Formats: sequence, structure tokens, C-alpha cells
Amino acid sequence: MAKQGLTPQADDFSAWYNEIVYAADLVDHSPVRGSFVIRPYGYALWEHIQRNLDDMFKATGHENLYFPMLIPVSFFEREAQHVEGFSPELAVVTHAGGRELEEPLAIRPTSETIIGELYAKWIQSYRDLPLLYNQWANVMRWELRTRPFLRTTEFLWQEGHTAHANADEAVEEMERMLEVYATFAETFAAVPVVRGEKSAAERFAGAERTLTIEAMMRDRKALQSGTSHYLGQNFAKAFNISFNDENNEQAFVHTTSWGFSTRFIGAIIMSHGDDAGLILPPRLAPHQVVIVPIVRGKDADADTRVMDTANQLASDMTDAGVRVKVDTRDGMSPGWKFNEWERKGVPLRLEIGPKDVEAGQAVLADRLSREKESLPLDGLAASMPNRLDRFHERLFERARDFRDANIQHAETYEELKEKVEHGWVYATHCGDPESEEAIQQETKATVRCIPLDGPSADGTVCVHTGKPSGYPRKVLFAKAY
Amino acid sequence: MAKQGLTPQADDFSAWYNEIVYAADLVDHSPVRGSFVIRPYGYALWEHIQRNLDDMFKATGHENLYFPMLIPVSFFEREAQHVEGFSPELAVVTHAGGRELEEPLAIRPTSETIIGELYAKWIQSYRDLPLLYNQWANVMRWELRTRPFLRTTEFLWQEGHTAHANADEAVEEMERMLEVYATFAETFAAVPVVRGEKSAAERFAGAERTLTIEAMMRDRKALQSGTSHYLGQNFAKAFNISFNDENNEQAFVHTTSWGFSTRFIGAIIMSHGDDAGLILPPRLAPHQVVIVPIVRGKDADADTRVMDTANQLASDMTDAGVRVKVDTRDGMSPGWKFNEWERKGVPLRLEIGPKDVEAGQAVLADRLSREKESLPLDGLAASMPNRLDRFHERLFERARDFRDANIQHAETYEELKEKVEHGWVYATHCGDPESEEAIQQETKATVRCIPLDGPSADGTVCVHTGKPSGYPRKVLFAKAY
Repeated sequence: MAKQGLTPQADDFSAWYNEIVYAADLVDHSPVRGSFVIRPYGYALWEHIQRNLDDMFKATGHENLYFPMLIPVSFFEREAQHVEGFSPELAVVTHAGGRELEEPLAIRPTSETIIGELYAKWIQSYRDLPLLYNQWANVMRWELRTRPFLRTTEFLWQEGHTAHANADEAVEEMERMLEVYATFAETFAAVPVVRGEKSAAERFAGAERTLTIEAMMRDRKALQSGTSHYLGQNFAKAFNISFNDENNEQAFVHTTSWGFSTRFIGAIIMSHGDDAGLILPPRLAPHQVVIVPIVRGKDADADTRVMDTANQLASDMTDAGVRVKVDTRDGMSPGWKFNEWERKGVPLRLEIGPKDVEAGQAVLADRLSREKESLPLDGLAASMPNRLDRFHERLFERARDFRDANIQHAETYEELKEKVEHGWVYATHCGDPESEEAIQQETKATVRCIPLDGPSADGTVCVHTGKPSGYPRKVLFAKAY
Repeated sequence: MAKQGLTPQADDFSAWYNEIVYAADLVDHSPVRGSFVIRPYGYALWEHIQRNLDDMFKATGHENLYFPMLIPVSFFEREAQHVEGFSPELAVVTHAGGRELEEPLAIRPTSETIIGELYAKWIQSYRDLPLLYNQWANVMRWELRTRPFLRTTEFLWQEGHTAHANADEAVEEMERMLEVYATFAETFAAVPVVRGEKSAAERFAGAERTLTIEAMMRDRKALQSGTSHYLGQNFAKAFNISFNDENNEQAFVHTTSWGFSTRFIGAIIMSHGDDAGLILPPRLAPHQVVIVPIVRGKDADADTRVMDTANQLASDMTDAGVRVKVDTRDGMSPGWKFNEWERKGVPLRLEIGPKDVEAGQAVLADRLSREKESLPLDGLAASMPNRLDRFHERLFERARDFRDANIQHAETYEELKEKVEHGWVYATHCGDPESEEAIQQETKATVRCIPLDGPSADGTVCVHTGKPSGYPRKVLFAKAY
């Protein structure tokens, strides 16, 4: 499946993305419209995401569980905004076991409703609170226009669902989990994010508040990378989740939900990749280091020494906690292999040929700087964890610098329209959904969020309507995935 | 949800099972018939099963990936036996995104068909073989009679799907993965299993051969706990999975599939549990040790010393690699907590009261022997890994001794009928599916398997038909879940 060359990002970023997800063996088409096979190289990324996020959930007191995938369609109707948001996208089972069902069952697009039904049973007293649960699951939203990872009918995610005795604790949970997502994105994926709150128009269907992390892709569009919602008592009232409080009075709980999905793989691809292909963050990369032994099949003794050296180096690196692969495939030239591992974004590549063995060295190729250097074999394996950490830092800094260089400020609507063609734009906004809609119609940009630590809106008025600012801070406008 | 008492196993094993799965907080009912919520205590068991099995899959060269959940119904029709076996159980999506679908889509009951479609694309040359992939997924089979874990419309499992250049390698893979399952069951779950082959009547729909591990529950019924199939070229031909072999000739691959599901949680429950509740195998138990500090709220200094001792002990045990929980809940008596952790099957429980702290000791309660002993605090934490290993061994030996004591041999059909009421029975069988069916009708027992290392059938004839033995070895008859 090797491609001679990818479309350069500058020519057509969208084409580059659509090519690289296949060329790097991340996904493949499936016979069902809008759903994709996640191939082993892509799935390994997801496994590392899962493992690390899950550790963070557990460290913050959450437990995993599993709810059924099928939800009676009538459940969605109990929360007015929720049904409005999700019913157009439901996939519905009408027949099972050879018979028509009495009530159609939807494949979950998200699980607030069925979870609400059970929480009503499990929560009786304040002693049962907080309830801090999460599930890893597949969900389905029947989208018309789909793209691998970014928008697919079926996707994999986790959805946390918590219940609390009061609003303060629920809001604190919403904030805590947003920070978990932000920390994960930056610390593991080297993806810098802006933490912010969604405007009313962009909130989750049924939420009182939605927090988001937004990342800038290399085409300067935004990608919403994780969201955390304070649902107030909306679902508690719809599903009668109430409890006996410390004063022996009956009260409704306050709930949150928060989700992070395979969509984030799209964020990794588009935050870091370049014209040669993927650049994977070392802490999530399936292979952190690939060793390509250069054996030509002409001098068996020399080839044996090369293979022995490569295997010894790999073994030492494994001992040092590095995920390393020795590429021993026959029938491909070293150059072909170099290209493949570049395309697949392996952070560090080691090339070892007979002359390197004689000289006691190996060639280290850096996927980010695309530079090569010869290094002594002695101490090389032990240096790898540190080299990978520095690779992570350089990758993060590159993404952060790129983002920061592409955020501008607009004082007028004309400025907003002009600048939002080239990146993200801070501007004051009144908060009216109608104004947001009009701006989107004209510019294709939306309010990504009101950043939690963005510039103050004091003394400014809405660039679009001239009304007072709807928020204490300026909002971030951007075109988005 | 505390129950005053479980139905004793000897009175009604089935009632005991149906009570304990709820009383131990493993599952709960869901609003959709036949599907269950797996609660955190049950799901944690599954997480430990997953983590350990997955490590074994990777150590044997397999990679994970993910295929879409929805499969066009027409795909099932391409393999004649497969469609016959699975079409009665399909759940079918007919509407999505507010419209009727052109072709109905089934929720996967197993994924051979959609995987076959993709393997046909991925496999071109002998260099692409073997292909060793696995996925962790939810599947759906619309069963009429359901029971938690044992038979549910939706369940969680892994399904391995491999493709090979020839029959020998595929058969070897089938055998290797059965051995992985057997090793896992015995080494992690302390569940002894019989490795065997299914008769033609009990094979997977579409397989040439099916291997199985069978475990004996404490009511002496059998539970099929994992299966591994050699699919021959059936799916290769149905989905045109062919390759260019080393002689540059086109050939069909040979495929295998193998699966292990949440059903195995039922095997754990019924292999080890007793009238007081679950007994969990330490290597899979969510909590291997629970510490119950005995604080009465009368002497604050004494209570503080108890809590400090409990927390120090827990910290030392965590350092020793033990999964330990300190039960600090208010409002419940120590006795109530002891009962709960017994019911939930925690292998070892430590009780620490003020007098224990003064004496520098703690009381260790063993869930299997149900004995208590006082032990010095000094060295206690460090001794725990070894104590848990010995608990595992005692649990395994108890199950193995119980099973071995309940396997008999029958020389005649009368003997088979009589003995199969009380356990498993070895007997010679001709292999005719009609005879198997007749025996099942009369005795409710089935051929569980032809054990790989069972007694020879030499010089014997079928106990039912008097015909020659259908196999080199005697078969194992049993009533089964």
C-alpha cells in the first residue's frame, strides 16, 4: 500500500489527511457506510491512549463498569434537549431473533439515559454519593458526512458519568475531568490545548455547562478534543435520581458526564504530521524506536554481526522501558523501510550497517528534525528514554509555538472576518446564539470556547452586534473540524 | 442490597447463582430484556481477565485491531453453515439517521464475515501470512432464555482471527490458543479445565474443528469456557481470501478463530463459590486483601492508632504489589463489613482493633478455609504475595479434586444414564449426531468434548448404538450450561 508521495499539506491539507490515514495503515474502509476498520497500527495508538487515561481516571477515584448498548428509544424523549440533539442520529434495531420488537431499541449515541435509569436505583442516600463511574464503549451516531477518526458512524470512546449531592461538587468534578483531559493531551500526546467553556449554542444536548479542550491543527483549524459537562439536575429530574440528604430530606442529584474518543487520533495526526507523513508523540507511539539493520545478503558474517548488534541494542532498550521494533523483513530495501517508518511517524530510527558495527556506532534519525547523526553504541540504549522525553518536549513546543503564532485579536467584525481566514481569533462577543449563527454563515467560523484564562473583555463590546460582552473574557473564534 | 442469606447451594444451585450475582454487586438488571449492567465489582474482574489474556495474546505474536459492529445481513449468507447457525439470533438495524436503510445491518454476533471481507483485501502474498489479529468487542446474540454472564443478548469478549498459508499452521494456531485459554483459566482463575475437541454436532457454525476447555461447576455441570476453531478454507472461499504462494500460485488461506467472553465470570462464580457467597481467585480479584479497621468511636486516640496501623499496612502491601482496600466506611458495624467481604469473595481479610494494635498483631481471615488466626504485624505485609499464591493453589486444588472425584466411567448406556445424574461420565461414543441428539433428549447430557488426553476407546464400542467408536478416545458426557 506504499504511496509514491503524499499531497503536500500546503497544497491541500484535507487531501493529505485522507491519504495519510490509509498510507500509514491506521484505518481501512468497511463495507458499511461511514464506519471504518481501525487497523493494528491505529488501534495500538488507541490502546496507549486508553491505558494512560484509564490510569488517570482511577487515580481520581473513578471505577469502570459496563452498560448495555441498546437503549429503548422512548428513554431519549424524557429529556427535551437531549432528544432534540440525538434523535436525528440514532441507529435503530427494530427486529431481533427473527421477530419485530415491541419497542425499537437505539444503539447508544451516548449513555446518559440508560445510566440515569440505573442511577435512580443505585442512589438512595447521601452515603451513596458521589458516584464516580466510567465506561469504555463503542457508540453510534448516524452522520451524513464522515471522515476517518474525525466523524464516523461508530466510534470508540470513554464516557464518565458521575452523580453528586450538590452543584458545587458536580462543577468541581466537571473541572477536574477537563483538567485530566488537558493534562493527558499535553503530557502524553504533546498536543497543546486551550481549556475553555462552550457558548450556549455549542453545549452538549441536555447540559447546563460544557467545558472543552481545543487544539489547533496544522491547517490552523480547531479540533474539539474532549468535553466535560455539568448536567445540572436535568437528567436527575428526567430519570428521578433522588436521594435522602444529610438532613433526611429528598433531593435530586447533580450529574456530570465527560467523554474522550478515537477522534483524538485525528488530533494527533493533524497536530504533528508533515509532508513526509505522521509524527507520533513518543509516549503513545506503538513503536518509539525502530531499528533497521542494513544487511545486503552478500557477506553472511557481516550480516550476522549487524543482526546481533541490532538485537542486543533492542534488548537493552526494552530493558530500559523503550518500545522498540527491529525491522527484519525480507525483500525490502533499507531505503524503503526508512520511508515507511518516516511515513508512520516513528519518533527515532536507528540504522545499523556493517561499517557501523565495525566503528561501534549507529546512525540515529530524528523524525521531527529529520536530521541524522552517528552515535557510539556504548550507552546508546540507556540514553533512549531521555532522548524520547526530549523528542516529546520538542514536539510539544513546536505545536505550541505554531498555535501561539496563529492566534490573533480582532477589535472589529471586519478584522474578525479577515483574520479568521488565517487562524484563531480572540474577539468580544455578546453571547447571542443568533449572532453566532450569523457569523458562522458568513465566515464558517464558530465560537470554539470562552477560554478559561483568555484576555479580559472589560471595556469592550461585541464585534458583531455592538452589545455588551456576554462573558467576562473574550471568546475564541475559529474554523473547526 | 444486603441479603440476609443466600439459598444454600445444595438446596438449589441455580437459585444460589441468581442471588449471588446481584448480592455481590456483580450485575444489575437493565431495561432491555436479556442484557445486564456489569457493575464495577464485576467489571473489575473482567478488566483483570482482559489485561492478563491480552498480555498472553501479545506474547504469542498477536495484535489488536477493531472492526465495525454492524455487518450487512447478506454477508452471513455467504457461508452456508454460518448463516444457519447465526441468523436466528441476529439483532437487525433497519433504520438509521431517520431513514430506512437500503440493506439491513446486523449487530455482530461474531465477526468472521466482515473480517473475511477485509482479509481478502489485506492478504495478497505469502509474505502477508500469517495474519494474527484479535479484537476486544461487544457482540449480540438474541437468546430467548438469558442468565447473567452465562447467556446474555449482549456480551463482551475477544475474538481472535488468524489466516495461514496452510492447514498445519492453522491447526497449530488453533491448538496454541486453546492452550493459552487453558493456561489462563488454571493459572489466573484457579479453574481446572479439560482440553478437548467438540463433536461434529457441537462445532462452531462454519468450523472444520472446534477445540474447547470445559470446567466443572460446583453443581457438577459443565461450562464451556473458551473455544478455538480451525475454519479450514470455508471462510476463505466464501470471502475469496487468497494469496500468491511461494511457488507463485494462487491459493486460499486457512483461517482460525477463537473466543473468550464475560461468560467466564460465570465459571469463576460457580467453580469456587460457597454458601457464604463468592470466593474469588486472588490473581483476578478486584481486592486481594481487605483491611477492616475496628473503630468504635469511643476512644479517639485508640481509633487513630488503629487507622494509622491499617493505613501503614495497606501502604506496605501496595508496595509489595498487593491490591488492598481499607474499608473506612462509616455507619456499618465491623461484623456487617466482614459479611459483605465474605459474600464478595475477597480472598484474605485483615481485622485490626485497638487490642490488636497494642499486641502488635492483626487477625487474618481466610475466605476459603474460613479460619482466623492472629499474626504479628511485623513482616505481615511482606508475606502477603506468598499467602495469596498459596490461596490460589489451595483454590485450584480444591476445584480439581472436586472435579476428579465427580468424573465416572460408563461401560453401558444404563450406567451412563445413571451416572450422568451425578457428574461427568467417560464413555465410548460412535460419533453419530443422531445418537448424540437421542442421548440428550433422554438424559439432558451432551458430549462436552473428546478430551485430548482422555482414556483410550480401544477395544470398546459405543454405549448407545453398539457401533465402533467414532474417536480414538472416550468422550465426556455431562449436563452443561
